[in-house]
Parts: sequence; C-alpha cells; structure tokens
Amino acid sequence: MTERTHATYWLETGDDPRRAAEVIAGEQSSGTFLALPNETPELKQRSGARVERLDVIEQVGQPSLPGGIASSVYTRCTLELSWPIENLGPSLPNLMATIAGNLFELRQVSGLRLLDLQLPPSFAAAYPGPAFGVDGTRRLAGVPQGPLIGTIIKPSVGLDPDQTAEQVRQLVDGGIDFIKDDELQADGPHCPFDERVRAVMRVVNDAADRRGRKAMVAFNLTGDLDQMRRRHDLVQSLGGTCVMVSLNSIGLVGLLELRRHASLPIHAHRCGWGYLTRHPALGWDYAPWQQIWRLAGADHLHVNGLRNKFSEADDSVIAAARAVQKPLFSHAPMRAMPVFSSGQTGLQAPGTYEALGNADLIHAAGGGIFGHPGGIGAGVTAFRQAWDAAMSGTALRDHARTHPELRTALEFW
Amino acid sequence: MTERTHATYWLETGDDPRRAAEVIAGEQSSGTFLALPNETPELKQRSGARVERLDVIEQVGQPSLPGGIASSVYTRCTLELSWPIENLGPSLPNLMATIAGNLFELRQVSGLRLLDLQLPPSFAAAYPGPAFGVDGTRRLAGVPQGPLIGTIIKPSVGLDPDQTAEQVRQLVDGGIDFIKDDELQADGPHCPFDERVRAVMRVVNDAADRRGRKAMVAFNLTGDLDQMRRRHDLVQSLGGTCVMVSLNSIGLVGLLELRRHASLPIHAHRCGWGYLTRHPALGWDYAPWQQIWRLAGADHLHVNGLRNKFSEADDSVIAAARAVQKPLFSHAPMRAMPVFSSGQTGLQAPGTYEALGNADLIHAAGGGIFGHPGGIGAGVTAFRQAWDAAMSGTALRDHARTHPELRTALEFW
Repeated sequence: MTERTHATYWLETGDDPRRAAEVIAGEQSSGTFLALPNETPELKQRSGARVERLDVIEQVGQPSLPGGIASSVYTRCTLELSWPIENLGPSLPNLMATIAGNLFELRQVSGLRLLDLQLPPSFAAAYPGPAFGVDGTRRLAGVPQGPLIGTIIKPSVGLDPDQTAEQVRQLVDGGIDFIKDDELQADGPHCPFDERVRAVMRVVNDAADRRGRKAMVAFNLTGDLDQMRRRHDLVQSLGGTCVMVSLNSIGLVGLLELRRHASLPIHAHRCGWGYLTRHPALGWDYAPWQQIWRLAGADHLHVNGLRNKFSEADDSVIAAARAVQKPLFSHAPMRAMPVFSSGQTGLQAPGTYEALGNADLIHAAGGGIFGHPGGIGAGVTAFRQAWDAAMSGTALRDHARTHPELRTALEFW
Repeated sequence: MTERTHATYWLETGDDPRRAAEVIAGEQSSGTFLALPNETPELKQRSGARVERLDVIEQVGQPSLPGGIASSVYTRCTLELSWPIENLGPSLPNLMATIAGNLFELRQVSGLRLLDLQLPPSFAAAYPGPAFGVDGTRRLAGVPQGPLIGTIIKPSVGLDPDQTAEQVRQLVDGGIDFIKDDELQADGPHCPFDERVRAVMRVVNDAADRRGRKAMVAFNLTGDLDQMRRRHDLVQSLGGTCVMVSLNSIGLVGLLELRRHASLPIHAHRCGWGYLTRHPALGWDYAPWQQIWRLAGADHLHVNGLRNKFSEADDSVIAAARAVQKPLFSHAPMRAMPVFSSGQTGLQAPGTYEALGNADLIHAAGGGIFGHPGGIGAGVTAFRQAWDAAMSGTALRDHARTHPELRTALEFW
C-alpha cells in the first residue's frame, strides 16, 4: 500500500461542503477547473487527493473571508485530505505547495486553516530533524534538568558590540543559562555580527573558565546562505554553543542548508508568525507549521508564553509547546525544545510546568530578571527558585519563605 | 544623512492610534515592553524606528482580528514607519524580520497589513534582481513583442514523463511560446524530474529544429538546494530555457541561492499566497511582497488573471501586475514579467492590455487553448489573434471577421 500524507483543515464554504471538499482535493492534485480528457478515472484514482473525512461543525450567515462564492449560508467543517506519496515524494518544499498552496485562494473557500499534519515515514528518512534537541542542548548548556533560564539582549537594537558584551557579562556573572540576540539584531552596521560575537564570547569564555559552566548564547546569524555559514563557523571557532535564525526570513531551504552545515544547535525564531496565524479562519495552526521546521532541523522553537504581552491566548501557547514536544514519528521523535518568552517572570513557571508536565524547555525573561532590586544575579536566582518550587509542587509563596531572592521578586513581578 | 527603509501599513487599533504607532515602532526597533535604563534618548534617536505618517481613515465598532486590546472603538489608519539602515544593513532576510516580524502579534493591533515598501539604494547594490527579466525572456523565447502565449501542463499531477512529453508535443506543434509545469509537479516518484525533462526536451528541441524557434518550458525544480542546482544544470544541459520554483516553498535563501547558481530565467510561482493575503486586515499586499522576490532574482511573477477562477478581484490583479512592472529603483529598475493565469482565454486580452498599457507579460490559458474545436494549434492561434486585436485597438469581434480561429474561439470562450 502506498504511503499517504494526511492534512486536516478547518474549512468554511458558501458552497455545498462535499463539493467544496472535492474542489479543494482536485485543485491540490490531479484536477483542474475544466474536465480534461487526460484526467481519466485511473489517473484520478492513482493521483487524486482523497477526502478522508468531512464533519460539519456549524453554519453561519456571513463569510469569514471576502471573495468567495456568495451564499446565504456558510458551512464550517473539519476536512481531512490525503495524498499519495507518488505525487510529490518525501520533499518538504513540495509538501508546502501541496498542503498549503493555491487552495487558500479558491472561491469555494471563505475560511481555511491548516490544523494538523500526518507525514508518512519516508519524510523521517529524507530529513534530519534537530541535531541536538533536548539532550544535546542540555549537555552543551550544562543544565541536566529543569528549564534553561534565559533572557534576551535588550534594547532590541542599538547597543554596540561592547555594550552588548557588558550586558552579557552581568548576565553570565548572575548565573544565566541562556541568552539570545533579539531577532532584529543580526549584522547591522552599528553592531556587526563578527565584532559582537568576539566581544560576547570573550566574556562568556572568561566566565566559563571561572564558573565551570558555559552560558549558551544564541547568536542571530540570519542572512544570506554564505553569510550564515561563515557566521556559524565564527561562533563555533570562538567556543560558542548556539546559533539563532528567523525562520520566516530565510525559508525552508535556508534552514535545511544551515542544518546541513551546522554543528551547533539551531535556535529558531518565528517572527512573522502573526501574519500566518492571527485570523482564526485563515492560515496555519502552530502544530503543523512547527513539524515542518523540526524535520528541517530546528532545535529550539518559539512558542510565546503564558499571559504574554502579545495577542495569543494561553491555551494556544500551551498547545504550541505540546506540539513542539510531541514525537514526529514513533521511531524518530525529533523532539525540539519550546522557548517561552514575552512578558515572562517566575510567576508563569507553575502554570507552564503544570501544563507541560516537564521542564524540557527554555524560559526567557527580560524585565523579570533585570528588574530585581538585588541585581541581575538575584533576578536569575529568583527565576530559578520559582521553577524549583513549580517542579516540587510547592506554592511560590511557601518557597519564598526560605528563599529571599524569590521573596523579593514576588513583590515586583 | 543615513539611508532609511520606509514601510506603509494599514493599521487598525483599539488603542490610541498615536500610542499604537509608537508601540509598533518600538517593538520593531530599540524598544521593549519595559523601559530599560539602556534605552537612552541618544540610542532611541539613532536606532528607533520613526513614525513618519499616521492618517486616520475611519473608526469602527468591532475589531477585525481577535486577541487585541478590548475597546468600544477601533481606529483604522495609514501608518508609515521608517528605519535607519544601520539597524539591519541591506539584508533581505533581516528586512523581513524588521518590516514583517513580531508586529502582527501585538495587542495594540486588531488589523495590520503591509501596503508599501521603499528600500534605500544600498539594497540595489546588495542584491542582483532578475538576470533575464523582460528582454532576456523575450530573447530566449524568440518573442520580440507581444505577450508570451502560454499554458500549463494539466492534469496538474498524474501524467508520467511520456504523457507529459506528448502533451508538450501537441503544444509546441501548435506554436505555443511558453509552457509551465504545475506547481504540484516537481519530482514525484510517478513523474521524476529527470525523466520528464529528458522526454520533454526531446520534443521541444525537435520542434525547435523544425520550426526555428524554441518554446520556453518552465520546469518546476522546487526542492532542496542541491536538488535544485542539479536539476537546473540538467535543464540547461538539455537546451532548456527556463526553470520554475515555488517561492513560499523554498523561501528567500532558496531563491537567492538558485539565482546565484542559475543561468536560466527563474519563473516564480506564488502558491500559498492566499494564506498571506486573503484577509484584508492581515498580512501582505502584493506590491511589497513581490519587491523582495524581484530583488532576490525572480524573472517571472504570478499575478492571477482578470475574471479568474480564484477569489481575487480584478483591481487587485491589475495592481499586482503593475507592481511587478514598476521599477524598483530609478537606477536599477529590475523589471520582471507578470504571469497571468487561472481561467484565462483571449477574452481577457483587451482588458489586460488596456490596464497595463503594454504586453510585457506571460498570458497562460488551459481550457482556452485545449478546448478549441480546431485543435490545440488553432487554440494557440486564436489566443494570439485576440492579443493582436487588443494591441491594435480592434474589437475582438471585428478582428474575428478576418481571423477564423478567433471567430471559432469566441463561440466557446
């Protein structure tokens, strides 16, 4: 039996849902708008996408998206399609065109959102997945258990290399596990990548010599391919342990080539994710989206954070993090680490831990660390104490009784 | 004076529009959610994004997108921001993170759409633009004036290499200028790329020998980078004159690397465009989006077609085509060819020509050619006659009096 790829959509249509489903299946496989003599029943049987499931959810009076078929009623359904692997082979770029190509533009569609994706095993054989994942990241960061306590260089843009290094110095002296560049900071003339990495790694290596543990710094090397390769090599040659890239900036081929070249974990930023997901009747859920990037080699994937400063609801954040931790294939789990950030402090530790049931994650706070009256070191300590409390099932306030940094932090968080 | 990048957005906000604009500008440059001691006035002056323009359009009672600030009134505005080149350098991947990064997720945003982009000249120096564009494509296709009359291999998926070549044989014998693979057909096991190219190029070269003009075939080489390079070289070694790629499948680094490697025009498919644009309060207009891909090297860019079978309105199609033809820089126009397709026949020739004022384009029809009672050759001839009429300002019906293929076509189009 042939392998098949399955994709599940939330569909809204002004057409008869069964017909709309068949139009979508046709458009994304052997069909065309006109019946052509070449599209024989045999060809359609072999190459056509198949409607596996079509469950009506509800009917509404107004379309979610403009431009579709005019109707007095729009039907919302769950639609599952499947494709034979013979159409596209185990190719991630061609998978994109198949599961997320022209279909969003169809007039039969007044709403379409990709909810789920099940890839056949040949994709696991064709793509590498994360090279480091949870275990490799823990090993390099020297954090055998619990979350990586992290932060982000701020201001996002504007510090020069020496100012950046000075901020890093305070953080590593404070015992931070993980630091990342802002996604807006890559190689601008005011803070060139090479100078920044040299300045920062001097500080990081010096602290590692003194402290016996090296903080992981995700240097944002987003750029053209030769730039990314060269920058990766520089980071590695200076003893760095992580590189960062903006996925929507470089695209799939960019990540695949970086993964092929790299010998460091790849911290994957999702900036731009909003335009792919912010309208609930259009685009992508995080679960299918992150699958593609994990297969291509992302080790860490951003998932926002509980009670974040952006527009994403908590249940969406947790669903995203669970998706990142869910095995891609039973024989090739390719687990990645979810990265929680945006308006985070130790206050979100208990809820995050409770929802996930594990601490295989990076938790990044900015003001929640920098704002501690006892200084950055106390801020890092308090954040870690909050996680210790969460993982031992102790209320933060109880834990704070015997942990003064946490006690102080609870007053300003 | 420093170079600046300007981006214009349609913004809807439940906040005070001035404050929302400043939050967006801050988030995308030096700012953070918390005031940090390091974000000095000097740093902000140097590195902050600037609100250049904020024009209120109207106020509405309901937000377009969920998750934003709750309010009784939502203000819609035109917002122009600018960034100094020192923040990011002339880097297309980092431009993406700057103009289209986290901002779509802000709670101050209940609608955000990128309308326009003005890049400083250093981008023209940093990126190649199309290697062939209009002139190079015309030269290779042997079509010195008028549109390239084109078509698409259908069924989209399911034909094997020999069946594909047989369809191409009928088309080239009929005098077609341009043929493209479907975006779903790249290198599936049922129709492997190499076999398909070999079979098709035998037919194309044979016809070129007989007819003195070689049809341009855009072979869809979408895939991983090494695959794309190898496939390009195969096409070129067999005398092919064009390669095709799905932009959203490979991403910016993919196109940049293909452009660097290629010595053939790059036909750029936009499949997936729907999820970037279909909701009017979110995502991308085509004008700024196509600029990025042209800079990176796209020679041909899809723009849908008038009265198409998808959900896009005619004015949007024409705006997209005009954008593709508009010079990127006065000293480096980097013009590309718009590709019109989807439900097209000669009936759309007059309106397309009238709206653009030129025929520097590819016009692709499927059923409008295949369905001609006189056969494929008559279908191609009729389509070309429709364009001759359009360009000479003659009504199709008048031109049909002395052109029997067009006369017959008008009855079935």
